[in-house]
Parts: sequence; C-alpha cells; structure tokens
Amino acid sequence: MAGGSRIAVEPPSRPVMHAALVEAVERAGATVVGPADADAIVWADPAAVDRLEPILAAAPGARWIQLPYAGIETMADKLDPSRLWTCGKGVYAPDCAEWIMAALLTAFRDMPTFARATSWPRQRGRNLLGARLTVLGGGGLAESFLELIEPWGCEVTCVRRRATPVPGAHRTVTTAERFDAVRGADAVIVCLALTPETTGIVDAELLAAMPDDAWLINVGRGKHVVDDDLLAALAAGTVAGAVLDVTDPEPLPDDHPFWRHDNVLITPHVGNTPEMGLPRLVARVEENVRRWLAGETLLGPVDVAAGY
Amino acid sequence: MAGGSRIAVEPPSRPVMHAALVEAVERAGATVVGPADADAIVWADPAAVDRLEPILAAAPGARWIQLPYAGIETMADKLDPSRLWTCGKGVYAPDCAEWIMAALLTAFRDMPTFARATSWPRQRGRNLLGARLTVLGGGGLAESFLELIEPWGCEVTCVRRRATPVPGAHRTVTTAERFDAVRGADAVIVCLALTPETTGIVDAELLAAMPDDAWLINVGRGKHVVDDDLLAALAAGTVAGAVLDVTDPEPLPDDHPFWRHDNVLITPHVGNTPEMGLPRLVARVEENVRRWLAGETLLGPVDVAAGY
Repeated sequence: MAGGSRIAVEPPSRPVMHAALVEAVERAGATVVGPADADAIVWADPAAVDRLEPILAAAPGARWIQLPYAGIETMADKLDPSRLWTCGKGVYAPDCAEWIMAALLTAFRDMPTFARATSWPRQRGRNLLGARLTVLGGGGLAESFLELIEPWGCEVTCVRRRATPVPGAHRTVTTAERFDAVRGADAVIVCLALTPETTGIVDAELLAAMPDDAWLINVGRGKHVVDDDLLAALAAGTVAGAVLDVTDPEPLPDDHPFWRHDNVLITPHVGNTPEMGLPRLVARVEENVRRWLAGETLLGPVDVAAGY
Repeated sequence: MAGGSRIAVEPPSRPVMHAALVEAVERAGATVVGPADADAIVWADPAAVDRLEPILAAAPGARWIQLPYAGIETMADKLDPSRLWTCGKGVYAPDCAEWIMAALLTAFRDMPTFARATSWPRQRGRNLLGARLTVLGGGGLAESFLELIEPWGCEVTCVRRRATPVPGAHRTVTTAERFDAVRGADAVIVCLALTPETTGIVDAELLAAMPDDAWLINVGRGKHVVDDDLLAALAAGTVAGAVLDVTDPEPLPDDHPFWRHDNVLITPHVGNTPEMGLPRLVARVEENVRRWLAGETLLGPVDVAAGY
C-alpha cells in the first residue's frame, strides 16, 4: 500500500537544512504541506527537540516521521510508538568511519607529537597494519569501518548486543563478553548508539582489561565514557591515550582536564561535519520519500523500545 | 644454475642489523664468510657508503650484492655494473603506504589544528572518500598505497617514466604529462626514487598547476621538492599545505622556515621506522639468499643505469 503524498517539513528554524529537505521531498514526488494536512513529517532541525511534541500534536494524520541524524537519544523518550519512525542511521557512517581511520592513524603514527614539534623530533610510531582492534558496536558505522580497514590485515573483534556476526569482523561477541574482547587489543573503538545499557560502558573495569599500550577511540557519544575512570587510567599510564570526537558536555569546557593530556586528542564532533552530512541526509530523505510513496520498506527504522 | 653458498655480511658497524642479517643468511642455508671468500655480499649498514668500494675491492668473487633500504641514491654512482645488485625495493612499501594514508587523513581532517588546540575548536575537515589524488611514482610503494586506498572510492592518477598502467590506478600517464595530471587533484603524493630526472620535480610550475586547496605529500626524498618554490606557494596561499616525511637536509635545521608554517607538518622520516623496517628487511634477505642458492630470480633488482 502506498503512503500519502502530503509531507510536512518542520520546523523551519534551520533555513539551509529546511530548504534542502523541502527540495528533496518535492524531487521525490510529494507535496509539502503544513502539519495539519500531513501524512508524514520530515524533521528539519535536530536541535529543536522541544518543538517535537507540539508539532506532532498538530499533525494527527502523520503516520511516519523521518528524523535527521543517526543519534536520536535526545528524542528517544518522545517517540510515539503508534507512528513509524526513521532516522539518519547509516547515512553518516562512511564519514564517521573515515574519521575512525584518521584517529587510529593519527594516534599510531604519533601525528600530534609531530604537529606540536618546532624542531626535528625523534623517530616514533607503530603500525596499524596487522593490528588487533576491538569495536564496540555492530551497526552501520562498524560495517563501514570494516570496509575501510579491510586491506590492512587487522584482526577485528566486534562487541554488540546480540552475537549476530558483523560482516568483515573476525569474531563477534556479546556485550557480556566485552572484557575478554578488549584483552590484547591495540585499540578499542566505540561506535555505539547511546542507550541506558551503553552509558558509561567504558569504565574502570573495561579500561583495566585493555592493555596499557592500547588506544581508546570514541566516535559514539561522550556519555559512553566514564571521564573520571579514563582520567585515572591516563594518570596511571595504563592506557596509551584517547582520541575523542564526542565529549560530555559538548563543547568540552576550557578547564576540563582532558585538555592537559598530550595523549588525549579532542576533535570537535567532526566524524561528519555539517558540510559532509547535509548532502548525505538529503539523499536519504529523497530515497525514503520515494519509498514511502511507493509503499516500500523505509531505510533507517528506529526501534522505539530500544531507543535507537 | 645455483648461486654460491658463501656470503659476506658487511660491514659490522651497525650491530643489531648485522646480527639479524647474519642469522637470516644462515637460516636460508648459506655460510657467512669474509669478503675475500664471498660469492655474494649482504650490505649491513646503509649509512656506511664509504666502506662500499674497499669491501667490493676485497671481494673479487662476489657476483651479487644485496643492499638494504629501498632508496639507494647515495650509492648509485658506486654500483659496478659487472655485478648483480638488489636492494630493499618494495620491502618498506606497506609501512610507507600506511604513512601516506596517515598523512592524507591527518591533513584532510585537520588533525594538526586539533592537536594544538587547548579549547574546543571550530568544526572543520574534508573527506578523503571520493577525492582526486595524483601519485608521482608507479613502483611498489604506489602499488601498496593503491591497495590501501581502494575502498575509499578515490580517483587516482599515477605519473611515471613509462605509461605502463599501475594496478588499481584509474589512469597512468608519463612524466611529461605531470602538469595536466595534477590539475584538479585534492592531493599530490610523491613516492618516487631520487634520480637526476626526478630531482626538483615539485617546482614552481608543478605547484602552479595544482589547485590552491591541494595538499602536497612527500614520502620520496627531500630533494624532490624545490623548497623555495614550496615556500613561495605557501606564502601566496596557492597550496593547502604539505606533509613531509623527507626533507633536505635531514634532520631539518631548527631555523628552517618550514617549521613556521602551521600548514606544514614535518615527520622525521618515519614512513617506516627502524623498528618496523628491520623485520621486513630480514625476511627479504632470507628469501633472496634462498633464491640465490636455488638459482632463482632475485627480488628487488637495481637498474644500475637508471640508478634505482
């Protein structure tokens, strides 16, 4: 059964994103209408969480809501289960996978040390080729990362809720086995969605199970890491260092102790930048609207109970 | 016809390398002897160029000489063409290809800016995914790099002496076409051997043909770049920046103007570090001695006339 062809693009508070999404909806063959007349809603401002409930209330006929971005934890408690929800899940995966590769190579090849040098530094660096990597997460981002790392001959273990094998991983284990999974790792890479189950998953116990020369790479959410536990490991020298694209909070305050560690590299949530992300989101929305009109399965479905 | 089984490992001036190469020769089944009795020589100290002629003179029966390292320009004028010469060509290619990936991602994702930041920086960065890359060089290093970049969907042009296609490249052109080959490139990567023909190949004319936002990546030799021309381009803003693992001279002096440019990243000749390189060289030497004893074709032959 085909979906309706009247779609609201709301709210209009982020003009560039709004205009691009309106065009995507129209290119796919639907008509852009107000919430009261809409069969579906394309959400056009990820930050405008407080606008979600009033606009949903004004759109009783909207059976499908497309959210932007992949991480939807700020909206997770507002997802009315009587409607169909999709998000940007997977859309940003190639960019974020690229950032993971950049983070690993920057760390393993000591680029921060070289970037700060003002005279010829001593030789240093280790290989990513053939390294042992543990990935927390088994979604689209982990899959994209595994595609990029494939030629490097690394031994990759994925840790996820269910042990369904992740394509390209050498082994896939469940979250309960995470401590064993990080023993012997050269780097542990967090690419999880933030849920109550994954909040604080990188804690003192996990850090203690990692080798002292292992790097922590986080492209999930800041709240995956217990900052005090990471700071204790940094002080004790029981972790090689951390590359963090996400922090809690963001921006990270100027007086946060992470800034004082030479082996902590903070990047300002650039796994994908807005410039990289908008064209990818627009393509996803256009494809999903086309599918909606044709009555086909939509991409990026949200599991409302699981919250991602 | 099988080669002789008496091999000199000379000079002994670098004890760790010398001991490892003696073991490799013996593992392959040959006997280590002095130069006077040798059918072949494994050269065991890349820096001891001035020892080459006297040791060759003392080894009239040595028909094959295995040199360490891939770049042999310091010895190129001492290669007696009546003997067979091999070098470490290709041995270090995977490590150096990894360094190229690290350099590209460090540059494209603005890691030096983030490494120097002491508070939350503004978002920046561009994709390597789908970029247009021009590689100067078509040897083992270019091939290793093309293997690593394969999943990124880049459009790669290789420039080499002869237009024999490089596996994995979208197009291969000759050195004469280098100016056209760099137009439209997001990065130009130098992985050439140093010869009279390639000395100073990155000059004002090549830099002018590159887009203003293109990065220069050099893992060849410092003398491939005309430093004054690169400094002029940096001053004029007609190049995005440079990541240089090789400089002229090395170490780069403290007062060299490269140190004063935030968009020039110097790494201290770590495409492969001694720690990465020695196990790879040892494996190559063992394999070549085994081939020599069996009368098989040796790996890494030097073209004495071409000088690499």
